[in-house]
Amino acid sequence: MDLDVIKQDVQAQLTEHRFAHTLRVVDTAVELSKRFNESIRNAELAAIFHDYAKYYNQSTMKQIIIETDLPNDLLNYHHELWHGPVASHIIKEKYGVETTDVLNAIKYHTTGRANMSQLEKIIFLADYIEPGRQFPGVEEVRKLAQEDLTKACWMAAKNTTMYLISKNNTIYPDSIHAYNDLRNQINGGI
Amino acid sequence: MDLDVIKQDVQAQLTEHRFAHTLRVVDTAVELSKRFNESIRNAELAAIFHDYAKYYNQSTMKQIIIETDLPNDLLNYHHELWHGPVASHIIKEKYGVETTDVLNAIKYHTTGRANMSQLEKIIFLADYIEPGRQFPGVEEVRKLAQEDLTKACWMAAKNTTMYLISKNNTIYPDSIHAYNDLRNQINGGI
Repeated sequence: MDLDVIKQDVQAQLTEHRFAHTLRVVDTAVELSKRFNESIRNAELAAIFHDYAKYYNQSTMKQIIIETDLPNDLLNYHHELWHGPVASHIIKEKYGVETTDVLNAIKYHTTGRANMSQLEKIIFLADYIEPGRQFPGVEEVRKLAQEDLTKACWMAAKNTTMYLISKNNTIYPDSIHAYNDLRNQINGGI
Repeated sequence: MDLDVIKQDVQAQLTEHRFAHTLRVVDTAVELSKRFNESIRNAELAAIFHDYAKYYNQSTMKQIIIETDLPNDLLNYHHELWHGPVASHIIKEKYGVETTDVLNAIKYHTTGRANMSQLEKIIFLADYIEPGRQFPGVEEVRKLAQEDLTKACWMAAKNTTMYLISKNNTIYPDSIHAYNDLRNQINGGI
């Protein structure tokens, strides 16, 4: 698949603002992949597609979650969490992407999960630190991303979880699994 | 079983400081039970026993968790989370307590869980707000406990989770399930 063709397809799915974000996530993911020796092609693919389903309507996403093997407990959580898993399904079906690592990086880019692969970490982090992002703590995560992918992901997971709880939002279990697992990877255990 | 006999047994297991805490949890749990129409006898039993295993050594607790049907994933988390589940097992075996609600209130008093019974909420909350407790936010939870058991539990779960994350500790999944479920009980859904 030609990346320029894919970009056109993705652009058609997104707002101008969201497409510009997506392109910055691609650039950031490529940069991180060079730094940490990840496949650039896989990083580009996962990044360009990560928000593909961002503007799918809720009933469409709900139907896809119910009819496929995506976890149904997603429906008990905020619909903002649905677009990653739904995109991973669409990208496989519509674009024939078969690389599990790419599909998982798309699927888990919002929540993270325990035992993330390096590519999953890169997409999760690129989405958080791309240059357009401005929120408390992002600069510290950008600095960590210069040297330690896992520490940077952990700080991003920590910040996001604290923010969501401070706003009285629910927390999807995979987010806590990601936070716990990344923390244990850094600390070497309990 | 006579409560005074039980108190002597519990006292023998605990430090003076911890036993005084336990007696305050009993009083607070009884008070909450009167307020919210819960069985006072069950509240007394669960409260007096809740910290029974607090000073069991780690290897004993570990062995009990492995050899019984307690969830083994506890061993991947801080040992502070072990004493509630271990106590529920001991109390059943040694004291013949068969009331599932009492055993669950002991088992889940540290973490909470989704779908807590009223008794479970009362013990979880009494442990948090008993008069000896002094930490940021406890006064607000005490006020909520005057009127709304679920809101008070939710605020306690929220405060505890925020505190643990701010200290870079791991979060046991049941704690997040409790926070999410209590939040949804209050908000009436997602």
